[in-house]
Amino acid sequence: MNAKKLAGEKALEYVKDGMVLGLGTGSTVYWTILGLGELVIKGLNIKGVATSKATEDLALKAGIPLVDISDVYEIDVTIDGADEVNPDLDLIKGGGGALLREKMVASVSRKLVIVADESKYSAHLGKFPLPVEVVPFGWQTTMKQISAKGCEPKLRMKNGIPMPTDNGNYILDCPFDKIEYPAALAFSLNMMPGVVETGLFVKMADTVILAGTSGEIQVKESAASTR
Amino acid sequence: MNAKKLAGEKALEYVKDGMVLGLGTGSTVYWTILGLGELVIKGLNIKGVATSKATEDLALKAGIPLVDISDVYEIDVTIDGADEVNPDLDLIKGGGGALLREKMVASVSRKLVIVADESKYSAHLGKFPLPVEVVPFGWQTTMKQISAKGCEPKLRMKNGIPMPTDNGNYILDCPFDKIEYPAALAFSLNMMPGVVETGLFVKMADTVILAGTSGEIQVKESAASTR
Repeated sequence: MNAKKLAGEKALEYVKDGMVLGLGTGSTVYWTILGLGELVIKGLNIKGVATSKATEDLALKAGIPLVDISDVYEIDVTIDGADEVNPDLDLIKGGGGALLREKMVASVSRKLVIVADESKYSAHLGKFPLPVEVVPFGWQTTMKQISAKGCEPKLRMKNGIPMPTDNGNYILDCPFDKIEYPAALAFSLNMMPGVVETGLFVKMADTVILAGTSGEIQVKESAASTR
Repeated sequence: MNAKKLAGEKALEYVKDGMVLGLGTGSTVYWTILGLGELVIKGLNIKGVATSKATEDLALKAGIPLVDISDVYEIDVTIDGADEVNPDLDLIKGGGGALLREKMVASVSRKLVIVADESKYSAHLGKFPLPVEVVPFGWQTTMKQISAKGCEPKLRMKNGIPMPTDNGNYILDCPFDKIEYPAALAFSLNMMPGVVETGLFVKMADTVILAGTSGEIQVKESAASTR
């Protein structure tokens, strides 16, 4: 059974008529967007805010009307994927490189619903290398400062050059292995001058939907969400 | 008497042979750089790291050898200006738009010496609108989030379009009027996804040299510098 499809479609239960929806990026939200498209054809009235060019293309093809993030005051629900989820529902995101836009959309959303296959669930964050978006100027200096926090960052490359993000920055993939205190790490990384944003989403997810290949679905609700 | 010149030249006392120096940007550090150039001609052996294109041009013209920030492990002393200084030696910088590079250079410096005329000294930070560098994507959303902290940000314009920073971002000038807790404000702004960096330099300055038009110079040393 396709766990990503199960999780992605389960999230449709959080969608109501008239909502503004944040549309995440990735192979699990893919199924949410296809499902939304079918509901729109049946008459559901929603507007979407895309977190990446890829999602924008997919949503338009599915018939979902889109608005710009600047044109909405807040978003009712954002549905997005994650690369890693811990029991506090803190997340690592950004494997796809869209972490900044995803975090901005999430930050103006009343509710953040995360969809993932159960392999993304982990007692501690950090097995997945943390993506950190940095300014190109002095990136080696920023890399040294991040190294001092206990990892050996790697500059993400594409076609032999540093992969530019949608915002013209670089991504450092930071294998911390085990992140004991996600909030503290997020703070200290964000306070580094060259760091634009990290893939740590701390106390942002309200609901995490995890699906397994055997077909079972777990829905975890956060007690700690600050929103 | 030229207070900027007095302060800028006083900072030369912190320079020793063999040092790597961070070279700030602005009309007060201008005098430091000219003075350094004269010392170099007399045989002083230093290397400079420039915080802006303008400073790079000025330093090269003055005969100061420059290195890239990526090529040094740390900087011995950085000399820079400020737009506002409070009694704790917290600073507002970025009136010139180079705050990110200035902060990055300061963050790898063993000592940060600030030079300013005494008009920059203030019981509270905030009379000078705080410059905040933001990513162009969703800048209106970021502006709304900053507004919620108690100010009405203005997008910095140049020749009828948003002024791009050296890093391709925008600057929001944020008139907070009176910033009671600079560290807390810096944290909360830096944690906003669209904020790249703020002009708040908290617990970074080790020494502040203030000069008045009547010729007197005050040297303030920080007890609170974390470095």
